[in-house]
Amino acid sequence: MEATNIPGYTFGGPDVAASPVTGADVDRLKATLLWTDDDDRYLRLAGDVLADQVDGVLELWYGYVGSHPHLLHYFTGADGQPSGEYLERVRARFAQWVRDVCSRPHDDAWRDYQHEIALRHTRAKKNQTDGFDSVPEIPLRYLVAFVFPITATMRSFLTAKGHDRDEVEAMHSAWFKAVVLHVCLWSVPYAPEVW
Amino acid sequence: MEATNIPGYTFGGPDVAASPVTGADVDRLKATLLWTDDDDRYLRLAGDVLADQVDGVLELWYGYVGSHPHLLHYFTGADGQPSGEYLERVRARFAQWVRDVCSRPHDDAWRDYQHEIALRHTRAKKNQTDGFDSVPEIPLRYLVAFVFPITATMRSFLTAKGHDRDEVEAMHSAWFKAVVLHVCLWSVPYAPEVW
Repeated sequence: MEATNIPGYTFGGPDVAASPVTGADVDRLKATLLWTDDDDRYLRLAGDVLADQVDGVLELWYGYVGSHPHLLHYFTGADGQPSGEYLERVRARFAQWVRDVCSRPHDDAWRDYQHEIALRHTRAKKNQTDGFDSVPEIPLRYLVAFVFPITATMRSFLTAKGHDRDEVEAMHSAWFKAVVLHVCLWSVPYAPEVW
Repeated sequence: MEATNIPGYTFGGPDVAASPVTGADVDRLKATLLWTDDDDRYLRLAGDVLADQVDGVLELWYGYVGSHPHLLHYFTGADGQPSGEYLERVRARFAQWVRDVCSRPHDDAWRDYQHEIALRHTRAKKNQTDGFDSVPEIPLRYLVAFVFPITATMRSFLTAKGHDRDEVEAMHSAWFKAVVLHVCLWSVPYAPEVW
């Protein structure tokens, strides 16, 4: 799907507010993550490797969420049933997020959109984008916990195009750092005073 | 050093308050982390592998913190200088934490002490244990970001005793899950209402 056709995907759009996170904040986080130019390079390579596999990645992740009622809960409505439409709209944006992680420079537009995603996990904005009356927020603990499955499950996809072990490890390490960086930015609205 | 001789290490002691986190919360987090009995088993094995290497692990981690002024900052006093004594006291507890991660069952005492550690990162309790007037809190973003270095740097130590690749991977995966689990519990006081 073309990014511009994904419902609710507003990267770079006029309705995305400025992030409270500064470029210097990101620089310090990336130093904490031991981020190097190689990580940028291997994320781009990961983007190539994943290009025709993103649907498979999301299939795996949705299978994981769907098989854990305490996670599927965050896609349920007032009747306790998950909404297929809501799940599918989030899935398309989640797939685009994978592509963005591998390709977007860490500039103002990227920082602003990560803050938009952050808000969409909280009472500030969850459910608004898709007009579905689901539970009002994702608890912080699950954002943090997702670092593991979102990182660990990616390795098999990164090995699927015949790159050697060192290249796969380098792509996987860059992906791990990038996931943590995004979760750091997504945690802002949960604890703005002590972030 | 015997755990009972480590200044400020109060695991299981009478002054550790009850954690607000329930056993059911932990069970759901572990399900989110795809935790299995194998993870318990490989953490125990990691404990054996690391037993005589914990000082080396801390040496590496302290070198990392010491080489990043924005991180060393959290060990500085009013004069802007890091306190060697404060660093060493924290180091001894951090080393014990490595041993505890590999060996402690996830029971009430473990949950309570993780909450004590959580509070010691925040204005509620930072600096009290060691009587040093350092900066008042560690920002949430660095707790989350530390998942990467604390996980990635462990692999070489886990390979050092000649275990085969699959065993090292299994130990490393269990360690990764355990680090994320601990950071989830340490994030409670930063966002108690939306944790």
